[in-house]
Amino acid sequence: MNERLMFNLVDLAGTFAFAISGATAARRRNLDLFGILAIAYITACGGGIVRDLCIGAIPPAGLSDWRYLLTAVVAALLTILAYRWVERLTYPVRLFDAMGLGLFAVYGANKALAFGHNAEVAILLGMVTAIGGGVARDVLLARVSVVLQKEIYALAALAGAALAVIGEYLHWPVLWATWLPILLCFALRVLSLYFHWNLPRFGREHQG
Amino acid sequence: MNERLMFNLVDLAGTFAFAISGATAARRRNLDLFGILAIAYITACGGGIVRDLCIGAIPPAGLSDWRYLLTAVVAALLTILAYRWVERLTYPVRLFDAMGLGLFAVYGANKALAFGHNAEVAILLGMVTAIGGGVARDVLLARVSVVLQKEIYALAALAGAALAVIGEYLHWPVLWATWLPILLCFALRVLSLYFHWNLPRFGREHQG
Amino acid sequence: MNERLMFNLVDLAGTFAFAISGATAARRRNLDLFGILAIAYITACGGGIVRDLCIGAIPPAGLSDWRYLLTAVVAALLTILAYRWVERLTYPVRLFDAMGLGLFAVYGANKALAFGHNAEVAILLGMVTAIGGGVARDVLLARVSVVLQKEIYALAALAGAALAVIGEYLHWPVLWATWLPILLCFALRVLSLYFHWNLPRFGREHQG
Repeated sequence: MNERLMFNLVDLAGTFAFAISGATAARRRNLDLFGILAIAYITACGGGIVRDLCIGAIPPAGLSDWRYLLTAVVAALLTILAYRWVERLTYPVRLFDAMGLGLFAVYGANKALAFGHNAEVAILLGMVTAIGGGVARDVLLARVSVVLQKEIYALAALAGAALAVIGEYLHWPVLWATWLPILLCFALRVLSLYFHWNLPRFGREHQG
Repeated sequence: MNERLMFNLVDLAGTFAFAISGATAARRRNLDLFGILAIAYITACGGGIVRDLCIGAIPPAGLSDWRYLLTAVVAALLTILAYRWVERLTYPVRLFDAMGLGLFAVYGANKALAFGHNAEVAILLGMVTAIGGGVARDVLLARVSVVLQKEIYALAALAGAALAVIGEYLHWPVLWATWLPILLCFALRVLSLYFHWNLPRFGREHQG
Repeated sequence: MNERLMFNLVDLAGTFAFAISGATAARRRNLDLFGILAIAYITACGGGIVRDLCIGAIPPAGLSDWRYLLTAVVAALLTILAYRWVERLTYPVRLFDAMGLGLFAVYGANKALAFGHNAEVAILLGMVTAIGGGVARDVLLARVSVVLQKEIYALAALAGAALAVIGEYLHWPVLWATWLPILLCFALRVLSLYFHWNLPRFGREHQG
């Protein structure tokens, strides 16, 4: 009960943080009111929609559950109306984002398993749930996604999804199986931000 | 009967107009013959294909109904062969496009309801049916979609889809439930073009 | 048996070549390790995933069959670790790519037919299987897809898929129905590379 409530709160906080990152990026690109709302919503819900299409969960929850739409719209309007205030919130927004990343990865992996799919599908789609919205945001803004370029982001989601699948296969108690992977992803993400961890690159020959 | 025929005619006229907008944009970007045909087809049918995937209508009608493919190909070839002529048709093409926008929004919303989904899904996917192809066109041309930036376009589709769902829930007669939302979307779109209505933007601080 | 094995080998060789083209493009754009792996995987498997969503094959084989993921990861790591070596392999990689193109087109068309869809769906999705990954790669790298611009690529896939559907409808022996369309696509592609065949363009008025 208490745990369910906490899960829901983290889920909506993650949606909120993802939507803020979408709305902020769209506002910077000078999109209009509708464009900002649309990008905020897609950043928050796009990953889950792709996951649901791939596991056969029709209609996708991001389309049918009004709480996600409402949360994204409120986050976008806040970003518009209180932009200077939101800008000052970089730190908490990043924390929410890291929490959302972990929770989306774990929730996505669990949902894929619950629909009867194998471990590979669950791990890949857990990651897609967490990072898909951010990739869609960047595709719509016609830029190479920061998800594919900066710090440990997708990899943290991948680690969280993988641990969630392991926990499920080893029949860990629900509390552990849910929060340990979220914590792993969250910690990896926050530490990589703090210590500026980056994955290696190879694009320029003189760096090789 | 007569009504059915009119509906089909508007449907194909909308497909035609959407395909012309896709082919024109692809030609300007100097894509080759195949690229122009592909972008025309995706602009005309992309929104409906995404809708069908989300509501579980497999295979998507845009893939299985040859009339859409044929209409898109004819529109693209016309755009190539009679480019100067098509350029002079800006006005009728915009009218067809506005009609197509309304009809796609209403048809998309109705199809989602017919597949048993709720009002939120129907409204969102009605809008996606209408604007999805244009967004896909712009993503493939590697630019931020004009749909997210210019005039009242997506919002007109949203209004049309919402009114269609309201009409369905209130059991309006079919004639009203079909054409009133199309007319609303069409009128919003044409008026916004005529009077240069735009949604507010917030991207540059000095405009805020 | 022998034929089955050859089919599987060509399938994995095609996956390998597609993944190399993805990894090479991602490395040039200076993406990090994860970005290169992700783009390689999506280039190799993206077309098949879209096909499976459209024909109702849930979950998509690209997500559930570990051989594709493993092949893509190995190809990406090779591209990173032995870049100078891979660069010298342009010629064999292009041959594998042309083989993969033909095989993906034919396999995609056959799978769509096997799921009970009509000829149009099969031909379109055969082509999507073959070129979808390359288009997704370019969308993620925020550029207009070379698939829509250069030489005979998509058209070769379309020809292969169409011939595969014709062979199926005319009940050709499996050996012919499989390899003749692959050969047609392969030959078209290789000849267009060799002779620099391009489809016409119309984008600049002085070229018209």
